[in-house]
Amino acid sequence: MIKAGIIGATGYAGGELVRLLTAHPEVEIAWYGSRSYIDKKYYEVYRNMFRIVDDKCMDDNMEELADLVDVIFTATPQGLCATLVNEEILSKVKIVDLSADFRIKDVKTYEEWYGIEHKSPQFIEEAVYGLCEINREAVRGARLIANPGCYPTCSTLSIYPLLKEGLIDPSTIIIDAKSGTSGAGRGAKVDNLYCEVNENIKAYGVASHRHTPEIEEQLSYAAGQEVLLNFTPHLVPMNRGILITAYASLMKEQLPDGTSVCPSYEKVRAAYDKYYDKEKFVRVLDKNICPETKWVEGSNYVDVNFKIDERTGRIIMMGAMDNLVKGAAGQAVQNMNLMFGMPEAEGLELVPMFP
Amino acid sequence: MIKAGIIGATGYAGGELVRLLTAHPEVEIAWYGSRSYIDKKYYEVYRNMFRIVDDKCMDDNMEELADLVDVIFTATPQGLCATLVNEEILSKVKIVDLSADFRIKDVKTYEEWYGIEHKSPQFIEEAVYGLCEINREAVRGARLIANPGCYPTCSTLSIYPLLKEGLIDPSTIIIDAKSGTSGAGRGAKVDNLYCEVNENIKAYGVASHRHTPEIEEQLSYAAGQEVLLNFTPHLVPMNRGILITAYASLMKEQLPDGTSVCPSYEKVRAAYDKYYDKEKFVRVLDKNICPETKWVEGSNYVDVNFKIDERTGRIIMMGAMDNLVKGAAGQAVQNMNLMFGMPEAEGLELVPMFP
Amino acid sequence: MIKAGIIGATGYAGGELVRLLTAHPEVEIAWYGSRSYIDKKYYEVYRNMFRIVDDKCMDDNMEELADLVDVIFTATPQGLCATLVNEEILSKVKIVDLSADFRIKDVKTYEEWYGIEHKSPQFIEEAVYGLCEINREAVRGARLIANPGCYPTCSTLSIYPLLKEGLIDPSTIIIDAKSGTSGAGRGAKVDNLYCEVNENIKAYGVASHRHTPEIEEQLSYAAGQEVLLNFTPHLVPMNRGILITAYASLMKEQLPDGTSVCPSYEKVRAAYDKYYDKEKFVRVLDKNICPETKWVEGSNYVDVNFKIDERTGRIIMMGAMDNLVKGAAGQAVQNMNLMFGMPEAEGLELVPMFP
Amino acid sequence: MIKAGIIGATGYAGGELVRLLTAHPEVEIAWYGSRSYIDKKYYEVYRNMFRIVDDKCMDDNMEELADLVDVIFTATPQGLCATLVNEEILSKVKIVDLSADFRIKDVKTYEEWYGIEHKSPQFIEEAVYGLCEINREAVRGARLIANPGCYPTCSTLSIYPLLKEGLIDPSTIIIDAKSGTSGAGRGAKVDNLYCEVNENIKAYGVASHRHTPEIEEQLSYAAGQEVLLNFTPHLVPMNRGILITAYASLMKEQLPDGTSVCPSYEKVRAAYDKYYDKEKFVRVLDKNICPETKWVEGSNYVDVNFKIDERTGRIIMMGAMDNLVKGAAGQAVQNMNLMFGMPEAEGLELVPMFP
Repeated sequence: MIKAGIIGATGYAGGELVRLLTAHPEVEIAWYGSRSYIDKKYYEVYRNMFRIVDDKCMDDNMEELADLVDVIFTATPQGLCATLVNEEILSKVKIVDLSADFRIKDVKTYEEWYGIEHKSPQFIEEAVYGLCEINREAVRGARLIANPGCYPTCSTLSIYPLLKEGLIDPSTIIIDAKSGTSGAGRGAKVDNLYCEVNENIKAYGVASHRHTPEIEEQLSYAAGQEVLLNFTPHLVPMNRGILITAYASLMKEQLPDGTSVCPSYEKVRAAYDKYYDKEKFVRVLDKNICPETKWVEGSNYVDVNFKIDERTGRIIMMGAMDNLVKGAAGQAVQNMNLMFGMPEAEGLELVPMFP
Repeated sequence: MIKAGIIGATGYAGGELVRLLTAHPEVEIAWYGSRSYIDKKYYEVYRNMFRIVDDKCMDDNMEELADLVDVIFTATPQGLCATLVNEEILSKVKIVDLSADFRIKDVKTYEEWYGIEHKSPQFIEEAVYGLCEINREAVRGARLIANPGCYPTCSTLSIYPLLKEGLIDPSTIIIDAKSGTSGAGRGAKVDNLYCEVNENIKAYGVASHRHTPEIEEQLSYAAGQEVLLNFTPHLVPMNRGILITAYASLMKEQLPDGTSVCPSYEKVRAAYDKYYDKEKFVRVLDKNICPETKWVEGSNYVDVNFKIDERTGRIIMMGAMDNLVKGAAGQAVQNMNLMFGMPEAEGLELVPMFP
Repeated sequence: MIKAGIIGATGYAGGELVRLLTAHPEVEIAWYGSRSYIDKKYYEVYRNMFRIVDDKCMDDNMEELADLVDVIFTATPQGLCATLVNEEILSKVKIVDLSADFRIKDVKTYEEWYGIEHKSPQFIEEAVYGLCEINREAVRGARLIANPGCYPTCSTLSIYPLLKEGLIDPSTIIIDAKSGTSGAGRGAKVDNLYCEVNENIKAYGVASHRHTPEIEEQLSYAAGQEVLLNFTPHLVPMNRGILITAYASLMKEQLPDGTSVCPSYEKVRAAYDKYYDKEKFVRVLDKNICPETKWVEGSNYVDVNFKIDERTGRIIMMGAMDNLVKGAAGQAVQNMNLMFGMPEAEGLELVPMFP
Repeated sequence: MIKAGIIGATGYAGGELVRLLTAHPEVEIAWYGSRSYIDKKYYEVYRNMFRIVDDKCMDDNMEELADLVDVIFTATPQGLCATLVNEEILSKVKIVDLSADFRIKDVKTYEEWYGIEHKSPQFIEEAVYGLCEINREAVRGARLIANPGCYPTCSTLSIYPLLKEGLIDPSTIIIDAKSGTSGAGRGAKVDNLYCEVNENIKAYGVASHRHTPEIEEQLSYAAGQEVLLNFTPHLVPMNRGILITAYASLMKEQLPDGTSVCPSYEKVRAAYDKYYDKEKFVRVLDKNICPETKWVEGSNYVDVNFKIDERTGRIIMMGAMDNLVKGAAGQAVQNMNLMFGMPEAEGLELVPMFP
């Protein structure tokens, strides 16, 4: 039985971790960290957990926690994990950090986009970017996991095979993303009130969202060259779910007669299949079926698909997932499973809920 | 391994049965009955099931099914189960009927409220009303279960202890119920279009909803006398969830000085505890906490609570549950578990999803 | 041209006042009071008003305002209007108070339910309860209007004719109310975040909501005797709209043979028609049509209807309206129109928006 | 007083026409055409119109109608207007066609994308594309208006100035659009049921949506060259509203030192101002403010803005409007106003409703 501690257990991602770990056969939660609710019963903060969790919320004491548990999840605002972690802690306990602190290898890029000083740059190199489908082996051996952001997970998985296989032009990528409101967190802000979000859609963070450099870094690895792209997130009136619609120009194939054509459906499909055929959590949909966030709700799946537009020579790549599961807590559990040598899908065999 | 067949697998309740049984460790679904989608892959009707269910939809052939499976779930419109069932079938297979066909003991009442002739009145007496918390022993031995309606489940469990203990006046009960839209089914009707339901609330079936006699019958058993009541359902712009708010006059206690008082909070609470203390799926909430449908979403819980109003001498009883789980598919699985001697909560240890 | 000042212009009710007064042909808004946003452009707080309102938000200075305008609307938290008002101000300007300060004639009842001391009890007697359909003449001559609460407006108008005509038993009234979330205001609270309200319904303020004594007072006038009742509001995942479903026992009519019967549909209908036949803003719906909040959205209508249940001897009364219009700003404008001798419906000829 | 007839008065766009024309001071609706509801009271189809409209629904008889009214609005499926119209009718009455029949000048393109034969190609040339902000003078003199599609209106107005001024590369345009569900119409389809749309977002019509050639044609006029682009609509869980997020590469300016830079914010802003400064219904928002559909709900406004991304050399153009108003009925009324020499904004001074 693995003992887990959660720092930031009362945010939405933290709450989802509790939901998943409570049902995980090999894990026991030993610490519900929440500075805002210390000494309050956890179920008083999340009444869905009444009679399921009887523990109280604790302080965010990582030192104490490191002696007590096998794995710490930090589901906290940017900067906190980097402030708390140190070599002694890492020698005792594995850490899955759901914040952005260790996702970006270039500390300057991190500091520019996040506007804060990085307090533990010495661990950035060691930290493994926990996108299991791509970095599985590295995850297994890691002490410190940078759990990917929600948008980067969905974006990277939707685009990755085509860059790897050289099917799209890396300089033409545009990602238009749509997210449910749980991604905005549980903080009390007017902007996130029901009446402000309901019956409304808007873009935000245009050309400035902090997930941009994270996506660019991951896609640069895939492309083997630096990728700059446009990323525009939108706030959608729903609780959960991320949909990304990405655009890129296809690399055309020269025909003997001097003309050029887009790669065929079959060729593009083969690229997706090459990388995802054996992936449990990535479902490449049937031809012409567009992903819908509702089809993955509550589960760890990412549904992807694409459409070739021969008129414009572009491809439209689509991906859908639950931002709190594969985009946060589910992926964190997947990483934990790998780190502890458990079956990767343990506790994650979640059937999507519909409707 | 128990083999299950579902007739009506592509309605919302049928879909939820598939979700629950797919994750049930002791059950295998052998038949996805759906007259509307015969020969279509099940996942083409419910894309959330892609790569989880690969079977095709079959006809509603109960005879053939009876030879093939151990239990049949009928999640079909009223009248179908009563038309298909016969002694030979019942001698081979257990049936959990999610329709109303066998819920009401008085066939005339059934025929009046449902406006159809009952085709198998000979099985009404035998059928067990599958509200496990109340009829547990009878369920264990049953061949034919009348799985309770969604509103009746939530209403009965919220009111039952107080009638049993004589704390409320049975002639004063008013139930005001609110349901998510999945209760209206997956039929293509203008009334259930997104734009008609969204940003809207309305009562329907006022003083005429067919769940009324079912609730009355169950509460009559509890009261030991005939109960007539008012039941008003409302359609709420959300997918899942039923909330009932019920009102009744408290039986006052005579004081030595000739005045009378309402029973105390503690006394009423003790009545709830007496019946639900050991019930896994009924959660009596802490004092002053009102049930919310979100706290039980996706789970088999019913959350209940109450508030005494001494000014008016009435009590307000509240109950919340997921109409597709405890109100339909979850309760059906709970019944199946009991009928087959399995742990009652097998496959139903569902942690509510929030948000 | 009437000059209007609004204190509390940036709450939802204040925002709706701005929407209505902006389109009112005889009114000019001269003061957008909002302590939280002083010196900020009003359209920066409500971007829908971009290029429609160019003024800045001002302080809540009622003294200064009284010299400047003809009418002041106070759309502020309880207690503020009673604190600011005085004889000198009332001698200069008419006031429509959208808070509860002057709604309840018994100051002790006010202080008990609202938990604050009343700072201007000397004006309570003079203040006119601005439910125009009932107090039209008094409104015309008033200096100070207590604009009715949202729930009381809808509840009173739905029940009033039947009490007036002695058709229901005043001791049996139960009001189950459902409201959209704009009724909870624009304050930044976790409870009102999108993810907390969406896909959820709950009761709140059970047996303790502050609109209870207001409804009781108005219905007591109608009944000619003291009325105590149950009032239970619920929070519904929609922006606007209030639906009330009220229950009462009908006064039965004795037949010559000694039995008794409920009054007929025609008789009850006649009672509604007697009071509302000439009322522009109260629509008594066709038989068997249940009010829906969507049908009145954005308008000043209240739709009412009823259903007799002969089985239980009760009547179900239903009413729907837009809580921000007839339940707040629209009614305030209606009162202003009457006070200034304008046509009552001026600026309120709003066609409900559907969908 | 202008007499108007509506063919297709009971769809959502037709219903919105009724809402707007009912409040229009110079128009009287003389014909509520609806083949599905002939002889039914209009308010029985749209209960919001109770006591506002008392007329019955009529057949779609354009011949009869032409003798009766001054203007006919056809809010019908594709193909119907082209089938019904003829020279005699056009000689008697003005027509505003809300369908796509006369929007596309190249009949082959129409027939390819819509999959139907055009029955009146002889009127295509004459028909004026009723985007008033661009074709105002032609609209004034027209007999037959092709009322623009919802997506094309929002897309064209958001991008037009930059193409006109040569600020963006016409070969790089990508439009990612999001629409509320009223755009899908009032037909009873499973896909548009509440439970299917709610808590969900998806792309549809990817690389094949019929508004694509319409947008391309309009933008080609602006660019002075043929424009091919990508257009991807998405279905969003809300009733009303369209948001478009469009991407294009900026035309860089060569600097004396041989490098090149993006045009400045001021320069791009000046392009928008040049075309929209005097347009009542196009609001160019303040710098860094992203359009939100809620800010224009119920009104005829289109809110537009942009953001320059110097890192990628692209510009993000955004536009928001109410699909049923500026995207359909409001624009139709705006066209009618121009055609009859009335003030362009008559009946369209609608203040957006928030929340």
